[in-house]
Amino acid sequence: MAEDIFGQLLDEFGAGVVEHAAQSYLEEPRGTYQSAPMPLIRPHDTQGVSDVVAFCHRHNIAIIPYGGGTGLVGGQTKPDGNAVILSIERLNKIRDIFPTENVIVVEAGMFLADVQAAADSNNRLFPLSLASEGSCRIGGNLATNAGGTQVLRYGNARDLCLGIEAVLPDGTIHHGLRRLRKDNTGYDLRNLLIGSEGSLGIITAAALKLFPKPQETTTALLAVSNVDAAVQLLGMVQDQTGGLVSGFELMHRNGFEFLTETMPTLRQAFDTPPEWSVLLEVSGGADFNLDERVMNVLETAMETELVLDALLAQSQSQRDEFWNLRETIPEANRLIGAISSHDISVPISRIPEFIANTPALLAQFGDIRINCFGHLGDGNLHYNVYPPKGGQKKDFTHLRDDIQRTVHDQVQKFDGSMSAEHGIGRLKVADLETYGDPAKLAAMRAIKFALDPKGIMNPGAVLRND
Amino acid sequence: MAEDIFGQLLDEFGAGVVEHAAQSYLEEPRGTYQSAPMPLIRPHDTQGVSDVVAFCHRHNIAIIPYGGGTGLVGGQTKPDGNAVILSIERLNKIRDIFPTENVIVVEAGMFLADVQAAADSNNRLFPLSLASEGSCRIGGNLATNAGGTQVLRYGNARDLCLGIEAVLPDGTIHHGLRRLRKDNTGYDLRNLLIGSEGSLGIITAAALKLFPKPQETTTALLAVSNVDAAVQLLGMVQDQTGGLVSGFELMHRNGFEFLTETMPTLRQAFDTPPEWSVLLEVSGGADFNLDERVMNVLETAMETELVLDALLAQSQSQRDEFWNLRETIPEANRLIGAISSHDISVPISRIPEFIANTPALLAQFGDIRINCFGHLGDGNLHYNVYPPKGGQKKDFTHLRDDIQRTVHDQVQKFDGSMSAEHGIGRLKVADLETYGDPAKLAAMRAIKFALDPKGIMNPGAVLRND
Repeated sequence: MAEDIFGQLLDEFGAGVVEHAAQSYLEEPRGTYQSAPMPLIRPHDTQGVSDVVAFCHRHNIAIIPYGGGTGLVGGQTKPDGNAVILSIERLNKIRDIFPTENVIVVEAGMFLADVQAAADSNNRLFPLSLASEGSCRIGGNLATNAGGTQVLRYGNARDLCLGIEAVLPDGTIHHGLRRLRKDNTGYDLRNLLIGSEGSLGIITAAALKLFPKPQETTTALLAVSNVDAAVQLLGMVQDQTGGLVSGFELMHRNGFEFLTETMPTLRQAFDTPPEWSVLLEVSGGADFNLDERVMNVLETAMETELVLDALLAQSQSQRDEFWNLRETIPEANRLIGAISSHDISVPISRIPEFIANTPALLAQFGDIRINCFGHLGDGNLHYNVYPPKGGQKKDFTHLRDDIQRTVHDQVQKFDGSMSAEHGIGRLKVADLETYGDPAKLAAMRAIKFALDPKGIMNPGAVLRND
Repeated sequence: MAEDIFGQLLDEFGAGVVEHAAQSYLEEPRGTYQSAPMPLIRPHDTQGVSDVVAFCHRHNIAIIPYGGGTGLVGGQTKPDGNAVILSIERLNKIRDIFPTENVIVVEAGMFLADVQAAADSNNRLFPLSLASEGSCRIGGNLATNAGGTQVLRYGNARDLCLGIEAVLPDGTIHHGLRRLRKDNTGYDLRNLLIGSEGSLGIITAAALKLFPKPQETTTALLAVSNVDAAVQLLGMVQDQTGGLVSGFELMHRNGFEFLTETMPTLRQAFDTPPEWSVLLEVSGGADFNLDERVMNVLETAMETELVLDALLAQSQSQRDEFWNLRETIPEANRLIGAISSHDISVPISRIPEFIANTPALLAQFGDIRINCFGHLGDGNLHYNVYPPKGGQKKDFTHLRDDIQRTVHDQVQKFDGSMSAEHGIGRLKVADLETYGDPAKLAAMRAIKFALDPKGIMNPGAVLRND
């Protein structure tokens, strides 16, 4: 059947567009899912995407929309292989840039880092920023409503998008590439497609918000006395700067120890890593005296022992060094090998209690290590569970489901989310059924059927394919 | 039939909840639509709303969801009366407030001004602000994705909402009242309901974002040399303040003349109103020297003759006076009586060209007056057309459709929107069909049918009822 489809596609679209997918298209970063061999289709433009989708719609061929392949929940894979991969990588042009309007219009296949660079070269900021920015594509960022380190200040991918062009499941093109700040003409199809993980259509281009480039940035790495102190500190800095905090990342000692364990030559900031630390960044217009404002807050915070030690970056290279530590933790995590990773959010004021109470629940699983870190300013934690030092992930896989359920049950108890920024993909379909609001799930199924009655768009992602 | 329904509802829900709607519920502010007599149902809580919707769903009774009744596009009316009005006014409590999280959870029937006041008394800002804030209700603001004067800085109603509770068309309650900054668990039902104008469900409560209260505010009323100068000025102030502009309202001389004509005792700011003026507001944290920053920009802008005259508010009362002028223009407009009003948006950089070229197209309609004013910072203009001085609206109604088409055609040519902030309601259903993206319209109809197959939720609003 797959060969049959391949032949049909080749006849229709030619060898320049259709080929057998290389191995790299069949894998995902965490190695949990592997696609069976599938055809890879790489159209050159939106009309090409539309033609392919219309063809697949007519012939009932399932489509896996493919961005940079960096997603962490398996949404870019199809283990049974009964589909085609449709990559947007060739749609990679800047369509237009309007610096005075703070808008850039880009095609979905652009690397996130290239969008950032285009903004920068126009003296503007495109604030979406995440570890995979060099290899993820903006269309995938929008399809998954990517988060990252700047959400506290600038919002998720969703919040950065003014308009989209997209191909709907029957192949029709939605022309919604408006660059308006206000447009109340009907239902919010843009936000419905954003975050639908390719299950309702394929975003082919987007009008994105740009911002003034910060003229002043203050970055500090802080040892805090505990998580509650970190939450208090966030409020204090926001008050003192009128809400200019652009990064507030929590890190646990285990993260630094994982770095030592896996990358012993990496220079670390603290001689002895504190139990809890925070990477703080504040940015704003010129002459806002942000250094001084932050210093004033830190002085008070040290007097009251909220903050135990403070390293203020003295140069761009020191700033980069602090951020590099933070951004390298996921790689150290990968090398250690998690039994179970959790991308969760909890209301910010409840985070100290969540962090204090959860380890006792996990104690039943014996000698494990927790690396809890992430975007505290957004209430978003990566709460990952690892084998003890020297232990191997493979010897603990039998615990994985129980650990995950324990963490997610706890998140639910705290009115949190079991997928803060990574999405549902294939990994969390069952979790969504367990923890999701039943009325919302029923509405989602109705919407999926209404827009994709043949179920050809990323079947099995987000919603069970039945 | 209506009496029959009334009796059924009375039996089911009692006289404390069901009554005949008073006249005020059957009118809308512009007097374009009038509802025929209908039952009015005022449940006391979310379960009550759910019970009523479930009952109406079972019995195929159409529902007009009703907030404050201040909408400007007739979405709160049903001229044929074949429905019931479901008012959320009794759901008017603050459910919770979390100042450290910058979140307030409110029921949908709260007046917008009361939400603002609750935030203020907790030393926080809820920035949604519009002329009808004393009588519109937050549920209606969300249902219509209200805009107003602070969108440039803080976004629309949509951008201010973290989570909703809503009753769906079959009566089920969607429990989505999370107060999380990041939550990627499935399709964005929240944003689908926001802006759907009560046609997909009834929002009963919302978790809303709060912000630090500005510690410094600079307000200035400026005579600008032309609209292009105003657009340039916006960019200059944003650059000098790192993006802290919170208001940038354009006004035309005709607005001030309408004030003189209809409220001769109102004290005006300029002795001779300039052709174009801008109300500028910048706000931020303490000691940001915003006055000085704005003064520096204005100095340059006056040297280059972008700005011809500048009045800097010296006190809160002067600030209020400037804003009062701006906020009173709609009332003056109402007293003059527009032949046709247009709530439009155009990409900001194209606004000067739009404003320069459109009057020539309208010259065919003879001696008319244009009052173009609004939220220039968002690209949102209220482009209203009036009879000549001394003329009567009623003598020009035959021109209305042609004027509207002329303006909306022009908006379309400029990649703009013919409903920037007021929504579609009943007034612009045909416009949406004319100017809307066909793929989006098809998707909207599919979604409407999927979520409300019986078509009972605000039938005829947004989408034609057929």
